[in-house]
Amino acid sequence: MKKKIGVVLSGCGVYDGAEIHEAVITLLAIDRAGAEAVCMAPDIDQMHVINHLTGEEMAGEKRNVLVEAARITRGNIKDIRTVKGEDIDALFFPGGFGAAKNLSDFAVKGEACSVHPEVARLILELKEKQKPQGVACIAPTVMARVYKDETVHPILTIGNDPQVSEKIEKMGSRHQACAVRDIVLDRENKIVSTPAYMLGQTISEVAEGIEKSVNELVRMI
Amino acid sequence: MKKKIGVVLSGCGVYDGAEIHEAVITLLAIDRAGAEAVCMAPDIDQMHVINHLTGEEMAGEKRNVLVEAARITRGNIKDIRTVKGEDIDALFFPGGFGAAKNLSDFAVKGEACSVHPEVARLILELKEKQKPQGVACIAPTVMARVYKDETVHPILTIGNDPQVSEKIEKMGSRHQACAVRDIVLDRENKIVSTPAYMLGQTISEVAEGIEKSVNELVRMI
Repeated sequence: MKKKIGVVLSGCGVYDGAEIHEAVITLLAIDRAGAEAVCMAPDIDQMHVINHLTGEEMAGEKRNVLVEAARITRGNIKDIRTVKGEDIDALFFPGGFGAAKNLSDFAVKGEACSVHPEVARLILELKEKQKPQGVACIAPTVMARVYKDETVHPILTIGNDPQVSEKIEKMGSRHQACAVRDIVLDRENKIVSTPAYMLGQTISEVAEGIEKSVNELVRMI
Repeated sequence: MKKKIGVVLSGCGVYDGAEIHEAVITLLAIDRAGAEAVCMAPDIDQMHVINHLTGEEMAGEKRNVLVEAARITRGNIKDIRTVKGEDIDALFFPGGFGAAKNLSDFAVKGEACSVHPEVARLILELKEKQKPQGVACIAPTVMARVYKDETVHPILTIGNDPQVSEKIEKMGSRHQACAVRDIVLDRENKIVSTPAYMLGQTISEVAEGIEKSVNELVRMI
């Protein structure tokens, strides 16, 4: 039986959804590690739609997070509502603004954000069963928010951005600076994180950090 | 100076645009080979928009190929109209239905298809300068169509699909069967091709064929 790693996507495109490079590199690293990706996303509208050529909002346009995330997975994706902690051995969150706009409202509310209830539920189910989890790019903010009201608080990295790391610490987690090709491993809470495009200048260095994260995740199962 | 490899995208998503895994794996392989990707797409509407969760057409919805392709490139993309053969050292086409729906109308017209004039122009400029080109998945049909009226005809692969390979041969190219992890190299015409998701069952095997293609492309420059 292959080890099953849940991959939570937040749309399709760095500015309003999942960062596509990070997502695909995650899927490739999982397959190359001999594990199986179980892709999922919430069935909700995106916060908004950004024209990725101009960076402007496409006023009036609506897109659904699950439907757009299905582009990255070639249609093979589940509504996160249907995935239970017992169905998977580990959970990974690629980044992209979708993590801070769709999975949570961190992009708008900062440390006062809330997380989509099904995303929070699944993270806490994994925590309860002491199954490992991983977060890349801006996604550590989601993990920090979910752990905010818990008795333990993880060590996380988003690279070295002072504003975002301060907000992570305001939510109770500890932030540790990290280079893009590297990872921060919280052994006690079984949480791995990597800066990815919070720091990355090239796709290769982002890939190196994500590959290390996925391999560590598989090792911890 | 890094070698510049043009990457022609046809949208963002396997069923109506560029195959996202193939595109990202191409960008990663180019960066890891020490070369630079120059991404481009035509500034036209997609043939249609497919809901990748259900496989159904989203009636009434319109999306632009260049704008959607910009999701894969984090906004770093050019209108193909502005790219000249002298600007790049090689050219690569990932697959996805977008190659057969947006870059050409092969999906509708088969061997009677036509290719977007700027795509055809750029391919012929590369040919003229004897610069290497690569095609993955269904994209060899575009190459076959552009070479149809030339005096030389390339050897190409789309894996082993009898219907598509027959259409490629009707357009004058020679089709050679190939495994997903492998490539077909036409040394005379400096064209490399790989089946990718025309055959691939896993992202790893698709990656292996594309990585070999990109490395061969860089070697031929």
